[in-house]
Amino acid sequence: MKISLEECAKILKSVDNVVILLHHFPDGDTIGSGHALCKALQKLNKNVRVECADKIGKQYGFITKNFTFSDFEPDFVVAVDVADKRLLGSIADKYPNVDLCIDHHGTNTNYAKKTFVDAKSAAACEIVYELCKLLGGVDLLQAAALYTGISTDTGCFKYSNTTAKTHRIVADLMDMGIDYSEINRIMFDTKSVSRLQVEKDAINSIKYYCGGKVAIMTITKESRIKSGACDSELDGITGLPRTIEGVILGITIRERDDTNICKISARSNAPVSALDFCAKFGGGGHERAAGCEIKENKEKALELLSKAAQNMFEELGIK
Amino acid sequence: MKISLEECAKILKSVDNVVILLHHFPDGDTIGSGHALCKALQKLNKNVRVECADKIGKQYGFITKNFTFSDFEPDFVVAVDVADKRLLGSIADKYPNVDLCIDHHGTNTNYAKKTFVDAKSAAACEIVYELCKLLGGVDLLQAAALYTGISTDTGCFKYSNTTAKTHRIVADLMDMGIDYSEINRIMFDTKSVSRLQVEKDAINSIKYYCGGKVAIMTITKESRIKSGACDSELDGITGLPRTIEGVILGITIRERDDTNICKISARSNAPVSALDFCAKFGGGGHERAAGCEIKENKEKALELLSKAAQNMFEELGIK
Repeated sequence: MKISLEECAKILKSVDNVVILLHHFPDGDTIGSGHALCKALQKLNKNVRVECADKIGKQYGFITKNFTFSDFEPDFVVAVDVADKRLLGSIADKYPNVDLCIDHHGTNTNYAKKTFVDAKSAAACEIVYELCKLLGGVDLLQAAALYTGISTDTGCFKYSNTTAKTHRIVADLMDMGIDYSEINRIMFDTKSVSRLQVEKDAINSIKYYCGGKVAIMTITKESRIKSGACDSELDGITGLPRTIEGVILGITIRERDDTNICKISARSNAPVSALDFCAKFGGGGHERAAGCEIKENKEKALELLSKAAQNMFEELGIK
Repeated sequence: MKISLEECAKILKSVDNVVILLHHFPDGDTIGSGHALCKALQKLNKNVRVECADKIGKQYGFITKNFTFSDFEPDFVVAVDVADKRLLGSIADKYPNVDLCIDHHGTNTNYAKKTFVDAKSAAACEIVYELCKLLGGVDLLQAAALYTGISTDTGCFKYSNTTAKTHRIVADLMDMGIDYSEINRIMFDTKSVSRLQVEKDAINSIKYYCGGKVAIMTITKESRIKSGACDSELDGITGLPRTIEGVILGITIRERDDTNICKISARSNAPVSALDFCAKFGGGGHERAAGCEIKENKEKALELLSKAAQNMFEELGIK
């Protein structure tokens, strides 16, 4: 059942032992919104804890270090930024019933008993900001957590999901005195040595097709293992080929541990559809960012992808 | 003489043939503020042109394509985002008298007859936004130009010069319907193939000292020439070493065409002062971003810099 944000606030005020669930592979938005809401409920003297199937990255320590959680029996389960119950990951079975879901994904599957979704919000943190105000106000820690979710979900206000409202909320959060430039340094300007090694190998692998309009980059298993980079360290690396000047279809081949399987990410600019491209290989996603899997080794995958791209560009009449 | 923004508007309304000067090596802020002001004066049916010592990069074409300038005799000279007369570059002699300067640098040398400086503004475009409103309003083209200056001068709202006011102005500009995500893609997510090659070589060159707290990267003449990268394509590359996890002093050695001269950039995080470090080599700059020159080849420069860094870290007691 869809409910209003005011009803969410009313219900949350009425319950006492609350667990807040984040999605697995937690990002800044689910972490920020979960912890900001947690603090709001703690200030109302409720028993609250935040739970996530996966470990929260140490870069979010400036938020998480302010919380200690106890192992009480919850009487109310809230999920934040979780569009589908399966995205709870390994804790989905532990919490078969979610009482309330607060989310910004238009694709939300309405798995919770009560749901508030605003797909116009760039981040769940925008919604939780309004919710915290209804629950008694936003303090400095909450402001930092909310800023983190909003800046990470919008690529630091770079992407098209950012709205004028996003900027106005952020202005209010900044008025509170958060150290936003340090947050952004941690979130956007910090790379591990391993990541940098993989990037170097990946740049080295780039092949160009269609007169430089298509770039295909390969991240090999060898490079991953040699550098010691874990998956989360490689976040966003698949965006690299499309950032090259003149490239309108950027493709990344990620060789899996089983080297006969390659994970493919495609990013495109108009008029090319990354979604249409990946659909040729049984994949899906968004118009400008899509993915698929190819059950071949990386050399064969490169051959198949470059041919498919050339065919697609011919069909589209792009020269 | 310092004047108010209202006085700036009054004066600009009273003059007829205006030339607007940008600083040399033009960036988004001087280009954006200059063209937004130009449009404001054009709408008041004045003769206006924008002049710059250096060519404006083609990435700003979405702004500049909307303007054609004629070669009239100006009766009023305005400089925007130009802190020092010398920053006009090769056109400084052509315009010995600047009538009005609008700027956001606290270091402005007051070279113009009349000056409006607001050092709290993250970008000259924030000031010109207010000025355009006083001159009759902001249209879509002006909004795009102003957004460009603000987003480039703040690293897309990432850096510490960004204020709550910055975000509120940007929200107003976004209300006008600008294609901000495309602007940001051009400004922040586009790299030339040459740049990428230099980056790869540069990553390969990185040496670590002081247990990984110091990283020194070298950009060789050979890499620059082989890749065909021009100086403007390498903008911001010197920030790379400090972005590496654990690094608090990131140094870049740029080998000049005369390979016995190296240009050095240093970036630091607390408690290290990049300024103090560069001062050891006769350089200067800001606390966290400074530079110097070393009249030695790149191998010798690396040796000198790494020793100086190790000494500095010992003195500071950093282990």
